[in-house]
Amino acid sequence: MTTDTTATDLAAADTAAPSTGDATRTGRIGIGIGMVGYAFMGLAHSQGWRNARSFFDPALSPELVAIAGRDGAAAAEMARRFDWQHVETDWRALVARPDVEVVDICTPGDTHAEIAIAALDAGKHVLCEKPLANTVDEARRMADAAERARARGVRSMVGFTYRRVPAIAFARQLVQEGRVGEIRHVRAQYLQDWLVDPESPLTWRLEKERAGSGALGDIGAHIIDLTHFVTGERITGVSATMETFVKERPVAGSVKGLSASAQEGGERGQVTVDDAAVFLARLSGGGLGTFEATRFATGRKNSIRLEINGSRGSLAFDFEDMNVLHVHDASVDARESGFTKVVVTEPTHPYVEHWWPAGHGLGYEHGFTHQAADLVDAIARGVDPSPSFADGLAVQEVLAAVESSAANASAWTPIDLPAGTQP
Amino acid sequence: MTTDTTATDLAAADTAAPSTGDATRTGRIGIGIGMVGYAFMGLAHSQGWRNARSFFDPALSPELVAIAGRDGAAAAEMARRFDWQHVETDWRALVARPDVEVVDICTPGDTHAEIAIAALDAGKHVLCEKPLANTVDEARRMADAAERARARGVRSMVGFTYRRVPAIAFARQLVQEGRVGEIRHVRAQYLQDWLVDPESPLTWRLEKERAGSGALGDIGAHIIDLTHFVTGERITGVSATMETFVKERPVAGSVKGLSASAQEGGERGQVTVDDAAVFLARLSGGGLGTFEATRFATGRKNSIRLEINGSRGSLAFDFEDMNVLHVHDASVDARESGFTKVVVTEPTHPYVEHWWPAGHGLGYEHGFTHQAADLVDAIARGVDPSPSFADGLAVQEVLAAVESSAANASAWTPIDLPAGTQP
Amino acid sequence: MTTDTTATDLAAADTAAPSTGDATRTGRIGIGIGMVGYAFMGLAHSQGWRNARSFFDPALSPELVAIAGRDGAAAAEMARRFDWQHVETDWRALVARPDVEVVDICTPGDTHAEIAIAALDAGKHVLCEKPLANTVDEARRMADAAERARARGVRSMVGFTYRRVPAIAFARQLVQEGRVGEIRHVRAQYLQDWLVDPESPLTWRLEKERAGSGALGDIGAHIIDLTHFVTGERITGVSATMETFVKERPVAGSVKGLSASAQEGGERGQVTVDDAAVFLARLSGGGLGTFEATRFATGRKNSIRLEINGSRGSLAFDFEDMNVLHVHDASVDARESGFTKVVVTEPTHPYVEHWWPAGHGLGYEHGFTHQAADLVDAIARGVDPSPSFADGLAVQEVLAAVESSAANASAWTPIDLPAGTQP
Amino acid sequence: MTTDTTATDLAAADTAAPSTGDATRTGRIGIGIGMVGYAFMGLAHSQGWRNARSFFDPALSPELVAIAGRDGAAAAEMARRFDWQHVETDWRALVARPDVEVVDICTPGDTHAEIAIAALDAGKHVLCEKPLANTVDEARRMADAAERARARGVRSMVGFTYRRVPAIAFARQLVQEGRVGEIRHVRAQYLQDWLVDPESPLTWRLEKERAGSGALGDIGAHIIDLTHFVTGERITGVSATMETFVKERPVAGSVKGLSASAQEGGERGQVTVDDAAVFLARLSGGGLGTFEATRFATGRKNSIRLEINGSRGSLAFDFEDMNVLHVHDASVDARESGFTKVVVTEPTHPYVEHWWPAGHGLGYEHGFTHQAADLVDAIARGVDPSPSFADGLAVQEVLAAVESSAANASAWTPIDLPAGTQP
Repeated sequence: MTTDTTATDLAAADTAAPSTGDATRTGRIGIGIGMVGYAFMGLAHSQGWRNARSFFDPALSPELVAIAGRDGAAAAEMARRFDWQHVETDWRALVARPDVEVVDICTPGDTHAEIAIAALDAGKHVLCEKPLANTVDEARRMADAAERARARGVRSMVGFTYRRVPAIAFARQLVQEGRVGEIRHVRAQYLQDWLVDPESPLTWRLEKERAGSGALGDIGAHIIDLTHFVTGERITGVSATMETFVKERPVAGSVKGLSASAQEGGERGQVTVDDAAVFLARLSGGGLGTFEATRFATGRKNSIRLEINGSRGSLAFDFEDMNVLHVHDASVDARESGFTKVVVTEPTHPYVEHWWPAGHGLGYEHGFTHQAADLVDAIARGVDPSPSFADGLAVQEVLAAVESSAANASAWTPIDLPAGTQP
Repeated sequence: MTTDTTATDLAAADTAAPSTGDATRTGRIGIGIGMVGYAFMGLAHSQGWRNARSFFDPALSPELVAIAGRDGAAAAEMARRFDWQHVETDWRALVARPDVEVVDICTPGDTHAEIAIAALDAGKHVLCEKPLANTVDEARRMADAAERARARGVRSMVGFTYRRVPAIAFARQLVQEGRVGEIRHVRAQYLQDWLVDPESPLTWRLEKERAGSGALGDIGAHIIDLTHFVTGERITGVSATMETFVKERPVAGSVKGLSASAQEGGERGQVTVDDAAVFLARLSGGGLGTFEATRFATGRKNSIRLEINGSRGSLAFDFEDMNVLHVHDASVDARESGFTKVVVTEPTHPYVEHWWPAGHGLGYEHGFTHQAADLVDAIARGVDPSPSFADGLAVQEVLAAVESSAANASAWTPIDLPAGTQP
Repeated sequence: MTTDTTATDLAAADTAAPSTGDATRTGRIGIGIGMVGYAFMGLAHSQGWRNARSFFDPALSPELVAIAGRDGAAAAEMARRFDWQHVETDWRALVARPDVEVVDICTPGDTHAEIAIAALDAGKHVLCEKPLANTVDEARRMADAAERARARGVRSMVGFTYRRVPAIAFARQLVQEGRVGEIRHVRAQYLQDWLVDPESPLTWRLEKERAGSGALGDIGAHIIDLTHFVTGERITGVSATMETFVKERPVAGSVKGLSASAQEGGERGQVTVDDAAVFLARLSGGGLGTFEATRFATGRKNSIRLEINGSRGSLAFDFEDMNVLHVHDASVDARESGFTKVVVTEPTHPYVEHWWPAGHGLGYEHGFTHQAADLVDAIARGVDPSPSFADGLAVQEVLAAVESSAANASAWTPIDLPAGTQP
Repeated sequence: MTTDTTATDLAAADTAAPSTGDATRTGRIGIGIGMVGYAFMGLAHSQGWRNARSFFDPALSPELVAIAGRDGAAAAEMARRFDWQHVETDWRALVARPDVEVVDICTPGDTHAEIAIAALDAGKHVLCEKPLANTVDEARRMADAAERARARGVRSMVGFTYRRVPAIAFARQLVQEGRVGEIRHVRAQYLQDWLVDPESPLTWRLEKERAGSGALGDIGAHIIDLTHFVTGERITGVSATMETFVKERPVAGSVKGLSASAQEGGERGQVTVDDAAVFLARLSGGGLGTFEATRFATGRKNSIRLEINGSRGSLAFDFEDMNVLHVHDASVDARESGFTKVVVTEPTHPYVEHWWPAGHGLGYEHGFTHQAADLVDAIARGVDPSPSFADGLAVQEVLAAVESSAANASAWTPIDLPAGTQP
């Protein structure tokens, strides 16, 4: 027999007024999400918001209220696929919507500051893609706006999603529990190879004005943030060098995701960002770091490697095998010690209990769900989510120091820690 | 400025009558999905249907119309989380709904035959979880029903989702292209360890009546099907032995996903299925196979290993590193030959172009999306999806031969190939 | 200034009368080794004897007294390279030499029984290459001879050198210490690919008369013995199938090591041994085993894989990475558990303290040194070395059972444990 | 029947006058080796000389004529184990011996210059352990002496044995064949962990006067030389930082190999060398390098990692798996590309044909055999062996530049290429 009533009610509730309906039935209330941007990051964030609701069932349940994009048709296409309820072609209209409570910024870096500050000032919680901005100055203005907003209970977060890969979050837990001890070494690499071909076209990611920097800001930012996150320390100085191996490339025609094809006609333009950035660093706890961000690591597609050696143990991670953390415990007798390959899919591992049984791994996109769930959870609990805009600013300061050192014959370039930071 | 009209229209269309709206705008039309079951598989299938729409955008766009479950509250909870529009507490009601066009069966194996045959006879397309049934007889009746339905354009598919892990689908392509040559060896293992603890409770998966068999049918079925799929050959005979290492276990109390806790009181019941099944096999092309399915492989959570050696090359896969296929090409000079670790995340790999850029791996759940997308695509194109119920029957026949051989002192037990099968 | 006296004495002692000289200075006395055979195994054994003296400095110091081979020139060449003091062309002459105290048999399997029994009866200690013999009957006569000789203090050993890879010896220690618990599963593979090419010639290893069997006796014997050794249990029954994929091959011309080229003229001969043998097994402790020995595993050169799963932990080994043992401890909390990659190069690991610092790995040949050192150590201490001829016979009985089962439609074939063996 | 004559002759020749005897029989003549030092390196070199003769059978056959060491008993012990014919307690006496044609220097770095220059001036060929010297000045004087000696046909070689690991030598071949293309990135690490324990004692390796530097010179020198060797390029500038994590340690008592125990009494002394050195580099071809040498990489025993990314491909090596080279070929279609795990044990790989069949790996010590064989081969052919003292000097100049940069706030420090070097 059909449970007609229930079925009808549920359907009605879900389609007509889901958040109220949810509240009635389950104690959950909706929180309206408005997203700016609809490209690669827009897709990942759409999936994140939707899955946060389905798999984490947070007290504040994300509702996909509106998406904004200058190309209305493209935004509408994303809306159709993910059931975003409304489409805007001007981000200001999206920010102004009363049903949008969280503004999620997925646009290129040169637009972050304006949108984020406007949204914060309008009392909207903000999730902003990384890097926070293209310059330290912008980032600082954003962090200031976040600090002002915070006083009014408005939350902000920067989208370093790799923090939320379970193996990475587990690594941080182990460091916090003292399992690694005093950190001696960090070696961090973000290796891609999509620019090895000199005929690969000149997209906005290769223009300094739009992208701020090249490999450094795009992927180097991630390994800087991961180092801050996992170690709980800060980078206090750097020595760097950068390189643009291929100085000119064909001007881009059509772009799709991270792929693009060259314009017809064969026009070439100048690459104004770095292809690769390498730097040495010191951590606030006295350890040494070696960092490498490159788009010329032939054969490495998206290899984020992080190895940390400490007085009591070591950790090693490679995103090519993202469900694994290699853990070494120096207190184990040498006869039995080694790196243990922990498959980070147990219910006791961060985030995992919301997903599948042990051994059933997650993928790239799951970090976006964890990010969305953590943000609405922080909003619901009235606490500050992490990473904050101040964390984003800290990364920006390292990026700036790297550029400065590279421009100054690799001279050691110290980075001031924010007041109150534990060295 | 807000593009009011578009925004309003889209929202209206998506909430009130999505499929019609879609059709109007994009040429897509909806196809109503009804799912029976709401546990582990119900969750995975829900995600699969939803993501198929969002990421594959098929011509027939899955609509999550109704979910059925005897426990109405549990079914309603799943409905709430994934926006299933209606909840039924009797699968017959779900099958009877005119808005349900595909019946997706996610219940234990002893219920498959009845539901699937009823649905097919009612003219509904059917997706049935594996193993197809608990006995060859049931499976044969289901395959017959599928064959009858097929004549009326009704499609059916059995849910061996691991076929749709990109690395596995890529392996099949390589075999079909002749890159492996004549197949000499298959070694296939499905290794889990969730029963190592003798106090792990007695759930339905350990009862012969409900589950049909233990490790053999639950996970052994997968490696049999993967062998058929990747090699394009059939297993023609087996020699087997099976074991139940722990004969009695505490009766289960509450169950959640694959986890369960023991009933209070300490009552014990008899385990009536196998903990492990191992068998030798011959393939139709003359190769040898070794198979192992066990829930006692301490430390292996969900390790599906498949290695194939042929006259021209070899392939090796382990689900613990599911985005990778190791490929050996025997035509390469020995000086440079070896197993190439292909990270199967390129747009040219099966299914991948619908997801993320190269190097951004997928997880366990993505196979369910690929399954859903392939099924509605086959329905739209009027062709038979794969694996068919006949493929499910073929697996069932191997399972039966394994049990028979094990009961008969491992005597070689041939398996008849269906008429018309190429040896 | 030159320490003339010391220098002169030392040189004199070492060249003129090394054993006496050694004894005078260091308490070591020499033990004369006589080796029969000079091919691949002869080379490995020569290096083993010499290195045992240099790196293990045993109380009985091996002296390379004489080498025997039908091809006197080839034997003399080996003698020249390794300073064997004498060359014989008849093994009987070698056995008869009073200065030969240990007879080391490195010839094909069909000659083992005659030489070994003669040597033992002549009161010589014997090291015999594996497999002990080509038939169970021969092996039993050899074991009987060894038992008779033992009563007179004459020692014997069969050359399963892989037991003496440090990672394997360490694995056995862990099992003996109870770290694996009750053994549930053994999966053992010996994978080679040197016969994949159908034009690879017909050497003595492919002739049943000379070699006894093919992959089964040559490499399957190793994984049987390793299983006995590491688990401390015995195989009690098997179900098997065997295959010769390429039935005819070009007759061999010249042979060098394991390589050979085809005779001119294109004559073909019949392959009379198996290319591959696969079998299921039961262990005396109740566990299940799957075994595979093949020369058709394309891309696998010498991959000996052994994985053992028990109630308390697991071990995994692959000879392709021979200095590593992967160890899983089921008592570790799931959050931190996994397979630990133990690099078996610590001074506390078996044999390692005699070699290099931690992290400086050993190679294939070192097992032969360990074997030589262990044998002379056992002789010096008046105890029986291991593996004994009885251990070799036990392997032979498994090989015979495999052949019998394969010839009898894979019927389960029990193997009698020797009286007094613990089940 | 015993071939008495042959046997007697051979024994006589080998013991009484081996080199003459050899010459008579085989066309080989002996070359007298004199080794200074008897510790860890002395052991490795002894094995190298002896195995070169047995496995490579060079035209000039190494004879272990004399060993020199201040501790006569220790030297005599090494002589006894490896049949060195004479023992000296003063290296000058060894150099003066007319039967010593090659002087092999295995002492700490502060003694290299004096011994090597004296030997070269005395017309002896010289093999000198790395690093060539403790200072650039010493190294330059040695290189000058080598250049002078060269004019008289006297050869010299510095002992960077890792060049002669087959996988490394194979890597160089691939670079030379253009398979890697323009080199964009080198990332080189030499990771050890034997100083992690702050109670690990203060041996000579931690004293600047004896050792020159710490991790930098001891192990950093290796990865600098490997980079020069494999790429065929030179490091043209560096930016560096160095650290001594543990500033004071217990004074060492007894030392054995790389192990030592603390003196009783608890006295502590100052560590005057670096625990870790990290630096960025530019290569003469325009690529970027990141280098790290440390004794504080907890859990890494002797991990030498080298990864090279070029315009046409990539190579990756880790000494923890020393028989493997991972090779990426960018010309392969993305669908099938990846890193191929080449097991470098084929007869067509460098050095391998002299050893065992494919798949039977080599160990740490084999590089010393290859070094010895290559040196006597170069002497026999009248050509200069490699790496030359000039190559050793080049490494020393990089080490000095690293120290200079580290002392100068990581300022970029260029390194002059020798005249005539191709940039």
